[in-house]
Amino acid sequence: MDLLSIKDPSFLKGLSNKELESLSQDIRTFLIEKLSGTGGHIGPNLGVVELTVALHKCFDSPKDKIIWDVGHQSYVHKILTGRACQFDTLRQYKGLCGFPKMIESEHDVWETGHSSTSLSAAMGMAIARDLKKENNYVIPVIGDGALTGGMALEALNHIGHEKKDMIVILNDNEMSIAPNVGALHNVLGRLRTAGKYNWVKDELEYLLKKVPAVGGKLASTAERLKDSLKYLFVSGMFFEELGFTYLGPVDGHNYEALFENLAYAKKTEGPVLLHVITKKGKGYHPAESDRVGTWHGTGPYKMETGDFLKPASTPPAWSKLVSETVRKLAREDERIVAITPAMPVGSKLEGFASEFPDRMYDVGIAEQHAATVAAGLATQNMKPFLAIYSTFLQRAYDQVVHDIARQNLNVFIGIDRAGLVGADGETHQGVFDIAFLRHLPNMVLMMPKDENEGQHMVKTAIEYNDGPIAMRFPRGNGIGVPMDTELKPIPIGTWEVLLDGNDGAILTFGTTIPMALKAAQILEKQGHSIKVINARFIKPLDEKMLHELFAANMPILTIEEAVLQGGFGSAILEYAHEHGFHHAEIDRMGIPDKFIEHGSVNELLEEIGMTSEDVVERMGKLARKKQKRA
Amino acid sequence: MDLLSIKDPSFLKGLSNKELESLSQDIRTFLIEKLSGTGGHIGPNLGVVELTVALHKCFDSPKDKIIWDVGHQSYVHKILTGRACQFDTLRQYKGLCGFPKMIESEHDVWETGHSSTSLSAAMGMAIARDLKKENNYVIPVIGDGALTGGMALEALNHIGHEKKDMIVILNDNEMSIAPNVGALHNVLGRLRTAGKYNWVKDELEYLLKKVPAVGGKLASTAERLKDSLKYLFVSGMFFEELGFTYLGPVDGHNYEALFENLAYAKKTEGPVLLHVITKKGKGYHPAESDRVGTWHGTGPYKMETGDFLKPASTPPAWSKLVSETVRKLAREDERIVAITPAMPVGSKLEGFASEFPDRMYDVGIAEQHAATVAAGLATQNMKPFLAIYSTFLQRAYDQVVHDIARQNLNVFIGIDRAGLVGADGETHQGVFDIAFLRHLPNMVLMMPKDENEGQHMVKTAIEYNDGPIAMRFPRGNGIGVPMDTELKPIPIGTWEVLLDGNDGAILTFGTTIPMALKAAQILEKQGHSIKVINARFIKPLDEKMLHELFAANMPILTIEEAVLQGGFGSAILEYAHEHGFHHAEIDRMGIPDKFIEHGSVNELLEEIGMTSEDVVERMGKLARKKQKRA
Repeated sequence: MDLLSIKDPSFLKGLSNKELESLSQDIRTFLIEKLSGTGGHIGPNLGVVELTVALHKCFDSPKDKIIWDVGHQSYVHKILTGRACQFDTLRQYKGLCGFPKMIESEHDVWETGHSSTSLSAAMGMAIARDLKKENNYVIPVIGDGALTGGMALEALNHIGHEKKDMIVILNDNEMSIAPNVGALHNVLGRLRTAGKYNWVKDELEYLLKKVPAVGGKLASTAERLKDSLKYLFVSGMFFEELGFTYLGPVDGHNYEALFENLAYAKKTEGPVLLHVITKKGKGYHPAESDRVGTWHGTGPYKMETGDFLKPASTPPAWSKLVSETVRKLAREDERIVAITPAMPVGSKLEGFASEFPDRMYDVGIAEQHAATVAAGLATQNMKPFLAIYSTFLQRAYDQVVHDIARQNLNVFIGIDRAGLVGADGETHQGVFDIAFLRHLPNMVLMMPKDENEGQHMVKTAIEYNDGPIAMRFPRGNGIGVPMDTELKPIPIGTWEVLLDGNDGAILTFGTTIPMALKAAQILEKQGHSIKVINARFIKPLDEKMLHELFAANMPILTIEEAVLQGGFGSAILEYAHEHGFHHAEIDRMGIPDKFIEHGSVNELLEEIGMTSEDVVERMGKLARKKQKRA
Repeated sequence: MDLLSIKDPSFLKGLSNKELESLSQDIRTFLIEKLSGTGGHIGPNLGVVELTVALHKCFDSPKDKIIWDVGHQSYVHKILTGRACQFDTLRQYKGLCGFPKMIESEHDVWETGHSSTSLSAAMGMAIARDLKKENNYVIPVIGDGALTGGMALEALNHIGHEKKDMIVILNDNEMSIAPNVGALHNVLGRLRTAGKYNWVKDELEYLLKKVPAVGGKLASTAERLKDSLKYLFVSGMFFEELGFTYLGPVDGHNYEALFENLAYAKKTEGPVLLHVITKKGKGYHPAESDRVGTWHGTGPYKMETGDFLKPASTPPAWSKLVSETVRKLAREDERIVAITPAMPVGSKLEGFASEFPDRMYDVGIAEQHAATVAAGLATQNMKPFLAIYSTFLQRAYDQVVHDIARQNLNVFIGIDRAGLVGADGETHQGVFDIAFLRHLPNMVLMMPKDENEGQHMVKTAIEYNDGPIAMRFPRGNGIGVPMDTELKPIPIGTWEVLLDGNDGAILTFGTTIPMALKAAQILEKQGHSIKVINARFIKPLDEKMLHELFAANMPILTIEEAVLQGGFGSAILEYAHEHGFHHAEIDRMGIPDKFIEHGSVNELLEEIGMTSEDVVERMGKLARKKQKRA
């Protein structure tokens, strides 16, 4: 059928299973074709075609609340709720968001991006429904990976206790982003094969009937035994223990089975967990046969072959550079242990893992635990390397405060995807880390100007033994500079003058340095001599250099790809006013006080006024004022 | 015996059970007497006397790592590790810390204060041990309440998966700070009574023997059935599912039982969970018979009677004022729902709970879940009131960013215990909240000057419908001002001039206002006319008033009981430089860049240079400069 003509999911009610199967095929073809042009989360979405169709046929969205955990699997939902025509703009600037977005549709009742939030949100919605005496279903859809996140477990515990009506769909695709970790995974593994336990039950009942009833005591035993029968199903046990009615496992690509189980779930009182088995990438061979997660989220690809269109770029990816440098150092330093919360591939730790399998821990989607495991290691004089994305480090804030910084432990936090990340949008921008780390005592925070300095910084972090040290680095690739072969630590709290000048100074670090250098060149031609400083240590500041700048009455422009409130620029303001330089002219450039949506990094920088032209204008203004005064 | 003579726990090895029982009595008497003078966590410590003695007898600390979750139950451990002589200074300035502290003793291998971190720390230590091929035990001791925290569940999952050698002591005292919430609690409840399942097992084995073997199939059934026997013990199931060997439950006040189980645990490979039942307050009648948590942590009391020495103070406690005002408003506004993560008593929500049992949710120690439940409620046009301590809000930082602020939901966060908290010390100081909330888009953050303004602010928060709004308020009591009967919302972003003046302005809010007013009076006598402004909105700022101050060239002193980096003072600096007032003289007073230990709030303020004398000095300096210029 013509997917572009879909306005809302009501048309599903009248379709037969056969027609639904044909629709599913159309949706798959549509997704494979569209995403070949835009890229996106193809694997997860091909896996939930039937599940999404079934949910929209069995429930009445938006009255019934379908909540997509993480949300990267919401494309089919977007098609069924009238957004097929926007797929050419998927994840692009001002285009269709890759995650649920309330402003796009009334069917998006909850926005996501980070994992494991859906159950808590569903609990809030269920409480509201019951207080308002309304009568709707609440249906969180959560993956097996997201279930290992602490807040999902907190929620399961609370929901089971409160016995709220809710239908939790466990979308078990046998492979979350990385191989799942933990006992929960084993439980799910047993569930998948639970069918074979059925005959045990039948035979046991037969046996029980044969046992002669010898008085009340034995009868009672038999009775108790029967009560305990359900425990033979090692299966649902875990969830049943938590207070859920467990249904499944059911084939998530079979409409008949889905409808049968959903109908039963709707009739069941209290919380239900419906275990649905799906296959990531279903129906597209390259994605279906992927075992390592390459097809979880991709760039554009050639539809016919599954070849990726983007050429492998020559400069190393930042994640790889950092992890491989840690790996190199780990050969000589046995203290080094790497920890990742479910991102071994994203953080490019495969090499480290294969060389040091005993010294690499993927703890699953469990950022809090990851941070405190690192702290525990550090108390034993190990050197933990916590590889974590900036946006996900948010979830371990308290552990960084209470366990790492307060105990002043030697943990090296590698903050990946710091700054704007582009297509993943507002839930994934790594723009808060400076503001939430800078105020922590004992913390060292740095960012390198290029991949060569990056490798020296890794060395710096590994050799640093006075407490926690964090290095932020951007998403994407280095800029292709020559790499030193010998690694040398950089003295803590030292900046570097990249370009000298007298009319003003730009203080910046990381990705915004090229912008500053370009602006300085333009300003040079306009007659302004601008100093550009690589302020690679965000904390501690290079106080000596700052003193010199202030003493020379240099106006200062700070640039940071991070929020302005409480950021690096504020640190400069604080320093100036603390040390009697309140007359200093300081302008700060950075992310304004709003959430930044998806788009290419350059489009976003342009939107918020962070281009070399903006730098020319703002630094130029300061420089002219100074020249006028002089 | 003379507890003051204990140097380390080695003397325990030679004692008989009878001698240990006598020692236990001595320890109880000591604790009851000492804490009657200092106050402290009496209930939890009386509950773990035998458990602590048994652990130190069976293990070899500090080679073996005993890790106290939360840590308020570490007093007996402190006595056994040579610190009995310091108990007169417990929780006092420069005295013995109420939590484990590495600097106090080599036996304190991990510092705590916040809940649920011990298992992750233990995992880090176990990994380190195995990599270093060392041979020691790792023994985290965690309460049943702390087990509901997401990070503890993340850790259980990971530890079970990795099968690391570790002995987890589940200290199940049937009552954590508040009644436990959730399915886990039910599981533990069944465990406690698991003894009665034994006979079922015996009878079942008897039955199985009687069943005639009819071919291989049936034999195999019987075999499987036997395998499944353990599942009859509804008991250990949960933990066994997660990969632990479950031992217990064992009476935590019986040395023989403890030693037997600990010996078995030491011999068992892989992770063990030893379930120990203890009684909070054991051996001291007033504490033992406490059902609501009054004796969890106390001030000084009369030893003979258990009467508390501190008279009930007349001004209302802040927690009570806020919760009771919310309760009053809830009578007219059905949207209001209160949520607490395990602090119904601390947050004084008992009244609300009894009047609106359906609209009050204690979600257990689960701050992340609490915040996102609030967000879920808000999506359904409810008005959630999230009552949470400042220090514990740290654990929900990502949920505040990603779920509440990003979706701009109408959640009212009541931030209790904001600022310095005193005796609980560095793990509990509420000094980071301004710095970690101020940089979030959409967030309104305020703090009232007294309890009357506090009640109007609650009204403000409930009526505010443009996104999240947070009100911080201190630990302790109001100052005794008259209370208005009619509640009126305060316009968002408006400050209030408390005292007029021309030579300078002090901008402050909350608890530091009296200090500012006192200083202004002194400065008045010194010939300086100082304006004192109640800067009750930390975000957004009162831009109109700020403009006027800057335009009048008023030097400004900001005072905040919160960290300086990225705090309120920094917001003033940012504003000045963004709006062309970079010449403004601004001095900032607040918490410096270090963790602040325990002591009375006044002692701590003196230590960090935040007294009215300091204000006089610093504001006076600014005022004199201005007068000189004029």
